[in-house]
Amino acid sequence: MQTKIIKPAANAHDFPLLIKSLLSSGMRFQPDNEIVYSDVLRYDYRTLYKRVCKLANVLTKAGVKAGDTVAVMDWDSHRYLESYFAVPMIGAVLHHVNIRLSVDQVGYTMNHAEDNLVLVHDDFTVIAEQLADQLPSVRGYIRLSDDQKTSPTSLNSLGEYEALLAEASDEYDFPDFDENSVATLFYTTGTTGNPKGVYFSHRQLVLHTLNGASMLGSFEGQPLLRSDDVYMPMTPMFHVHAWGVPYIATMLGVKQVYPGRYEPNKLLRLFRKEGVTFSHGVPTVLQMILNCDETEATDMSRWKLLTGGSAATPALAKQMVDKGIALFTAYGMSETCPLISAVFLKPAERELELSEQIPQRIKAGVPIGLVDLKIVDPEGNDVAHDGDAVGEIVVRSPWLTQGYYKDEAKGEELWENGWLHTGDVASINEDYVIQIKDRIKDVIKTGGEWISSLELENLISQYPAVSEVAVIGVPDEKWGERPYALVVGKPGEEIDGAAIQQHLLTFVASGHINKWAVPQDIKIVTDIPKTSVGKINKKVIRTQVS
Amino acid sequence: MQTKIIKPAANAHDFPLLIKSLLSSGMRFQPDNEIVYSDVLRYDYRTLYKRVCKLANVLTKAGVKAGDTVAVMDWDSHRYLESYFAVPMIGAVLHHVNIRLSVDQVGYTMNHAEDNLVLVHDDFTVIAEQLADQLPSVRGYIRLSDDQKTSPTSLNSLGEYEALLAEASDEYDFPDFDENSVATLFYTTGTTGNPKGVYFSHRQLVLHTLNGASMLGSFEGQPLLRSDDVYMPMTPMFHVHAWGVPYIATMLGVKQVYPGRYEPNKLLRLFRKEGVTFSHGVPTVLQMILNCDETEATDMSRWKLLTGGSAATPALAKQMVDKGIALFTAYGMSETCPLISAVFLKPAERELELSEQIPQRIKAGVPIGLVDLKIVDPEGNDVAHDGDAVGEIVVRSPWLTQGYYKDEAKGEELWENGWLHTGDVASINEDYVIQIKDRIKDVIKTGGEWISSLELENLISQYPAVSEVAVIGVPDEKWGERPYALVVGKPGEEIDGAAIQQHLLTFVASGHINKWAVPQDIKIVTDIPKTSVGKINKKVIRTQVS
Repeated sequence: MQTKIIKPAANAHDFPLLIKSLLSSGMRFQPDNEIVYSDVLRYDYRTLYKRVCKLANVLTKAGVKAGDTVAVMDWDSHRYLESYFAVPMIGAVLHHVNIRLSVDQVGYTMNHAEDNLVLVHDDFTVIAEQLADQLPSVRGYIRLSDDQKTSPTSLNSLGEYEALLAEASDEYDFPDFDENSVATLFYTTGTTGNPKGVYFSHRQLVLHTLNGASMLGSFEGQPLLRSDDVYMPMTPMFHVHAWGVPYIATMLGVKQVYPGRYEPNKLLRLFRKEGVTFSHGVPTVLQMILNCDETEATDMSRWKLLTGGSAATPALAKQMVDKGIALFTAYGMSETCPLISAVFLKPAERELELSEQIPQRIKAGVPIGLVDLKIVDPEGNDVAHDGDAVGEIVVRSPWLTQGYYKDEAKGEELWENGWLHTGDVASINEDYVIQIKDRIKDVIKTGGEWISSLELENLISQYPAVSEVAVIGVPDEKWGERPYALVVGKPGEEIDGAAIQQHLLTFVASGHINKWAVPQDIKIVTDIPKTSVGKINKKVIRTQVS
Repeated sequence: MQTKIIKPAANAHDFPLLIKSLLSSGMRFQPDNEIVYSDVLRYDYRTLYKRVCKLANVLTKAGVKAGDTVAVMDWDSHRYLESYFAVPMIGAVLHHVNIRLSVDQVGYTMNHAEDNLVLVHDDFTVIAEQLADQLPSVRGYIRLSDDQKTSPTSLNSLGEYEALLAEASDEYDFPDFDENSVATLFYTTGTTGNPKGVYFSHRQLVLHTLNGASMLGSFEGQPLLRSDDVYMPMTPMFHVHAWGVPYIATMLGVKQVYPGRYEPNKLLRLFRKEGVTFSHGVPTVLQMILNCDETEATDMSRWKLLTGGSAATPALAKQMVDKGIALFTAYGMSETCPLISAVFLKPAERELELSEQIPQRIKAGVPIGLVDLKIVDPEGNDVAHDGDAVGEIVVRSPWLTQGYYKDEAKGEELWENGWLHTGDVASINEDYVIQIKDRIKDVIKTGGEWISSLELENLISQYPAVSEVAVIGVPDEKWGERPYALVVGKPGEEIDGAAIQQHLLTFVASGHINKWAVPQDIKIVTDIPKTSVGKINKKVIRTQVS
């Protein structure tokens, strides 16, 4: 079609969407607000800008050019935040190394990303030393130390981060360039094969940030994040941009608290000391927070918590609500930057008691701005939005990875018919509220029916003595597959499989599930295998069971 | 420089920034919230979406194609809101006709815009009939009527809006197209010559909306606009997209109240009836609101008011604060979409009494996200940000008009050295707070000094008996220029020029202004000439004085 077009290429006044604009904005809104690194360091937004300039000068002096890749191996810190800005702002690509992977996998990702410079924390020097010989693209290392007492190393070290910054100029004239330049790169651990790289451009991150800021600020009654909040992440900064919130918080000038390595008691002490009001985390981390020594002494009634990664169980949600926490859910994944939907309560829902709001608060919410989302059947046909029918969630948006890095074939599997396929199975109701039912690969196909392993886990978790549960499908000659449950009991409480089956039969009686959804095999265990980011690792469970 | 680039052209998965995404978003967040048209009509966001589809079908059936231009001549209404979406969403250009211009000027703009279809309210049918013969590009008219009783007309009428919508399908498959397609066009009345057209693309409006939403939601203490607010504009919808707020409110799913023709008492009755919490308006309109019959009976303590267009005087601001209104200032102009800066109070400023916050609240604030802004001297050199030195504000941002429509020469004057020149003179302090001093053309150049006409107006307005004031420079043989003041007294109060001069001499004594800034000519008048959007019309005053 022939619209009237302002030609960007011919246009001298075009303004590219670049990450540098996000940094300037926060400094102007709230110059006095602080960036805090655990008990080690604190400074204001004016200083943040100067330190990002210093880091850019250090990187440039170290030979980093536009198009190069800089890897960071660090816990959540001010250094990581500075890297979120300085690296892409000089046109380079920031590789967030997943430091929870095995050494071999870390090496695989750094090789695949062709890292040129590595910022490495003392805690990971041993790993970096092990890998150094296998990383021909790496030209040097900058060491990250909390106490300036770095031990000797065989790495080609250019110096310690703070020492290098101290000597650098605090001015840098950040250039303009194409907004489609890659800014960040990281790896997602699939169920099979090697980690896959996802990558995001300046344009994508700016749009994700703007949209995220308007979404987090426009919540009714209680905006999740605005300039007088205090933010502390509980999803690591190497993991999908810590859900993009460090960029959002910086754009708004929000006080930010980075805790270093996550340890539940330390997180709660920081929460109290710094007056934290907003955090995000996967259910596993939130569960640890609620069960640690400092929990009882901590008033959490001002805490707004965004959860995601996997659905919070009603039991966990109730525990949080009982502590006074305002719980919201967002949905997304590594491939989606990550935010694509979030819970927005309707006026009538907000008038319910907090505990009665739980069923709404733990759904995946509605698609946020600039996100097209629908559910499709295995043939790619649209599935009705009636709250009942299920299909795979597919999505379009300006901030989705455009493929897997250097892996065209896998990228083409991800994108089918112009939609990114999430691998999540869900229903959508008439108000566009998404309810995730399962991962496509975790759905249990039995007797011609689909049983959601997630729904079964939720029902089992409602049995009082159950602390954690995982359900998978195992091959069955007669039914194709049948459900199999692993259950961890609460400390000091008795638990057995027959009682849980009885518990499930009440849901059969009420018509909530079919009889064949009740697992014949329920195994009581002491812990359940988790992935590097704390999700239940069904891949490992399947290996153990088969 | 050679960054790693994701090529958008080669990329099948690119997601263009289009206005249709803003409409979908509001419907998902708050489907039950309402759009209200005065006392005539109300419906929810689900219906809004369907009505936009209906309008798109009506336009398509009327032969409107991508690249065509559709003009709207209406007061603020649900129809205008629907046009904000339906017209650009089918790839056409929406021409917001400034209905306060003279008939000749309206005709000039419609001819210059090459309008193809005109939506015309009953109140403007006579004007449209007068102009019809002079508008060869117009193929037809759709009549807008509040009571469905349209009188006979000589216009080539395709029917009445509501009747046409009633017969149209409520489904429309809105296409994707280039995000740089022009979406809106309107005309700004400069000081000399014909009105000049400014135009904005889908990309520009989406970015302005996203950024505006995050800005309005992230205010500390009291977010200006979020999904449980109720919005009523008091800057007309034909005037710079009503500051872009209808797009922002729709994206957030905010209840919107459109008042039709502005009449202060009607606005206040709607304010009370609909529970309005957020509005915006120029100081002249706010002044009328505070001085009308309904003012006393209206509790305004929940009202968040954004002002701009020109600075509110301290006296007006005090009057608003005394009514309990939370007043904020934003800055922009037709050429800038319009938002480029807004007031963000720092924590210490927020702790002051509301009345003591006034000096901060009526400044132009700090640049908002994605805006580069600085002040330059007449040679284009940067002027220091010390809160004292003044220069012309120049700006870069993704949402500035790329020129004047079909007028390359004037566009090149607007954009110099890659920066849009605002014609406003200001200082900027170390915290990046902008204080507008004057329009470059209104600065009074006397005895080798620059006197701000705006500052003089502020000082004169502080004299108790003064209701309104305008200051211009008039030619003077000895000094080059000298100040000349027009003053309107408050009803029933005595006022004379000598007393005002005495009042000004106290500011000379305190060193606040120089002696030659005190006007020797102060003329007491009953009213001051205004532009079509309610600003003081110094051009007309100069004509009258010379």
